[in-house]
Amino acid sequence: MKKALAVDVGGTKIYNTIINEKGEIVSEIEKTSTPKTYEELLAVFGQIISKYENDVDIIAFATAGAVNNENTKVIGSTGNLPLQYPTTNFQNLSRKFVFLENDANAAAWAEFKTGASKNMPYSIMLTLGTGVGGGIILDNKLFKGKNGAAGEMHFKMRCDKHRKCTCGAWDCFEAYASGTGLKKTAEEITNNPDITTYDVIKNLENPLMKKIFDSWQNDLINGIVGLANLFDPNVIVLSGSMAEFCDIKFIEEQANAQIVTTPFKVVKACAGNYSGMIGAALLAFEKYSKQAGN
Amino acid sequence: MKKALAVDVGGTKIYNTIINEKGEIVSEIEKTSTPKTYEELLAVFGQIISKYENDVDIIAFATAGAVNNENTKVIGSTGNLPLQYPTTNFQNLSRKFVFLENDANAAAWAEFKTGASKNMPYSIMLTLGTGVGGGIILDNKLFKGKNGAAGEMHFKMRCDKHRKCTCGAWDCFEAYASGTGLKKTAEEITNNPDITTYDVIKNLENPLMKKIFDSWQNDLINGIVGLANLFDPNVIVLSGSMAEFCDIKFIEEQANAQIVTTPFKVVKACAGNYSGMIGAALLAFEKYSKQAGN
Repeated sequence: MKKALAVDVGGTKIYNTIINEKGEIVSEIEKTSTPKTYEELLAVFGQIISKYENDVDIIAFATAGAVNNENTKVIGSTGNLPLQYPTTNFQNLSRKFVFLENDANAAAWAEFKTGASKNMPYSIMLTLGTGVGGGIILDNKLFKGKNGAAGEMHFKMRCDKHRKCTCGAWDCFEAYASGTGLKKTAEEITNNPDITTYDVIKNLENPLMKKIFDSWQNDLINGIVGLANLFDPNVIVLSGSMAEFCDIKFIEEQANAQIVTTPFKVVKACAGNYSGMIGAALLAFEKYSKQAGN
Repeated sequence: MKKALAVDVGGTKIYNTIINEKGEIVSEIEKTSTPKTYEELLAVFGQIISKYENDVDIIAFATAGAVNNENTKVIGSTGNLPLQYPTTNFQNLSRKFVFLENDANAAAWAEFKTGASKNMPYSIMLTLGTGVGGGIILDNKLFKGKNGAAGEMHFKMRCDKHRKCTCGAWDCFEAYASGTGLKKTAEEITNNPDITTYDVIKNLENPLMKKIFDSWQNDLINGIVGLANLFDPNVIVLSGSMAEFCDIKFIEEQANAQIVTTPFKVVKACAGNYSGMIGAALLAFEKYSKQAGN
């Protein structure tokens, strides 16, 4: 069975492991801090690749940032990664086939192939962490839009420039349905700038903290209603640290009560912490096998 | 060249004409009021079809309401049409091939094949009239979602239950970016419940009316930003009576300045008033020619 070296490139950590064609992790997970400079970043890639290149058939990156439709490079900005990162020629990093996909897209693909949205042709995955990541699968294919950047969960939750989003615009879904959004909601309700996401999550028996959490979850539901009306999906998959605290059944009921399209499911992701690497590897195997001679 | 009898079924009017394979209208446009009862509606369909059935190869309906992925029936509610309308077996209406598509979807397809979004693989059309219709084309195909209901422009513009939408939910894009939305915005800004859309549109040199219109257009821009971030489209096409008053270049500039995906165009529809019938006919010809023996 073919094997992929999978590398997850995030703003704070880089993970790598080896994954087989079934999407199974078949070696240790290795982890390192994401370096600050581009030269150091390339050096880390070089070390990982030279160590494992001979043991695998292909190399699959799950990365922060949008990835072009050819799966060869990062397009646009990538938050905490070095500015020059999008100039990287990934194929030059190895003599093996190199493939690249956005981490949230890759994770959505892992859920679709092996996890919570298995066999569902239309699914949307929301990764509720520090920010909100999105991955959209339509008609059994990863949806990327004209240039590969689609699936960004930056649609407005209000129009009066109330809360600034990390993207530079105002009042995006990400600024409300993320962990950071929960802190902001808590600040607004309590007038306490020092309150943390943790303060809320760990004290849900406290009526005020419950009220804050419910307000956050209501924003999440409102965003899900819009997505369901636009995409008429089979399922919306919730992943990320904040998904742990969500009342999935309640969200499903409330959202379905408000849509004009047809009923859909809400489920928790189950492909695990390394679903980005798994999804990237599975997508890479598909593309590799479509190329002549493989 | 093959010909289609095209029928546009709206809440107030029913239109019909004959359209050829190039999407050209080749007979008079006929118009009748939409009857109130289901029996009368079926009688109108019967009259139109019996009159033209022998002159055409296929029959194509552009209809209010969502249409299933098989293009055989209406699903869900259809506003001003009789309650039993979704139970209609359209194929039983004629011995010719009968095809059905949602009117906004059909109009988007006409723009894609013959109009403002020609040759653009990813486009979204917004029909800004009494309500807001939506048609989404992805990778050169009409996007319908799992059951055919996708493309409903009911995503939230705010989350505090401020403005009721015709769909029963609160604060949908339709409740802001429609002509009805403009009236509502005018009422809110002037505290005058009698102010009309017409009062605003016809007096844009008046600073207060201009302010109201700008507020409406800003809501439209905010919705477009979300759509562009979700879909990474080539183009967003604006049609319907309200599109006439939009500052297209301004909308394009403002929206592009706020997105995290890649640049897109905003254009005005140009396939004309009967684009719903044209699009339905063109889609119907495609489906008909794919069937064996045609």
